[in-house]
Amino acid sequence: MLSLLKVLGVDPGLGTIGWAVLETEGRETYRVWGYGVIETPRARPLAERVLFLAQALRVIIEREHPEQAAVEDLFIAKNSRTAASVGHGRGAILLTLAEAGLPIHEYNPRQVKVALTGYGAADKSQMQTMVQRLLRLKSIPKPDDAADALAIALCHINSASYTAGVAR
Amino acid sequence: MLSLLKVLGVDPGLGTIGWAVLETEGRETYRVWGYGVIETPRARPLAERVLFLAQALRVIIEREHPEQAAVEDLFIAKNSRTAASVGHGRGAILLTLAEAGLPIHEYNPRQVKVALTGYGAADKSQMQTMVQRLLRLKSIPKPDDAADALAIALCHINSASYTAGVAR
Repeated sequence: MLSLLKVLGVDPGLGTIGWAVLETEGRETYRVWGYGVIETPRARPLAERVLFLAQALRVIIEREHPEQAAVEDLFIAKNSRTAASVGHGRGAILLTLAEAGLPIHEYNPRQVKVALTGYGAADKSQMQTMVQRLLRLKSIPKPDDAADALAIALCHINSASYTAGVAR
Repeated sequence: MLSLLKVLGVDPGLGTIGWAVLETEGRETYRVWGYGVIETPRARPLAERVLFLAQALRVIIEREHPEQAAVEDLFIAKNSRTAASVGHGRGAILLTLAEAGLPIHEYNPRQVKVALTGYGAADKSQMQTMVQRLLRLKSIPKPDDAADALAIALCHINSASYTAGVAR
């Protein structure tokens, strides 16, 4: 018997941040409470963008009451400007989740791919098809960053239930 | 006549963050309220480190009551891992300052050097000597990140008073 677990998955960034809230309902059945993206105002100073992001994330946490959070590990971009930009978003996201008292689990892209498809080099389309199938959705969830957040939440739920299974 | 201005200068990072609180007392005289570094626990997960950083910064803000903040712009590191790491710290710092309601001004390293020495390629030792001289300190302030934060605060005070001078 699986214990219920409500997870907030986050695909981090500075401009577009994917989020998803999933709950286990039993073995391999999940309830999708919501998913979407937060878009920060691109023309505004960095401090305003991280504040906007933190406030939007807090609204989701207060509405959905997740028990745990799963965040994608930093993908090390080729470009150091991109790495810095994602870093700003991730720093603000981790701070907001930690201040909300959520236990935070980090997974790298390969771990997420293995958890969903059994294959560490799965492409975007294979991943999205697995997300749709596992969650029994009528279509591929959109936009891509929201689908990524659903995948991260699923990865954590599967890792967490596996760990729980071993512990007993 | 200069209006008084109390500024929090921050030299951002993830591991070591320099901070300094300065206030103008008159033309080219400044009161140093405090300076130092915040060191985040290196062996802990990223979320704990940004939370530690935000809490330490909040203690300084609540104790010193600065009116404005000046933060060094992201130095784009050669290495994208370093850029990401500083980005995490900066994202958390900007969020904390914005949530405290402080107006935030950003300066790049060249602007700070020009403001203090009139020379955009000034080296660390020239900068530290100018910080010591302008603030009439008995010795070079230590550690380096705290001296950098003092320089950033001085840069902002000079830019701000120049702007105010022009406006009248």
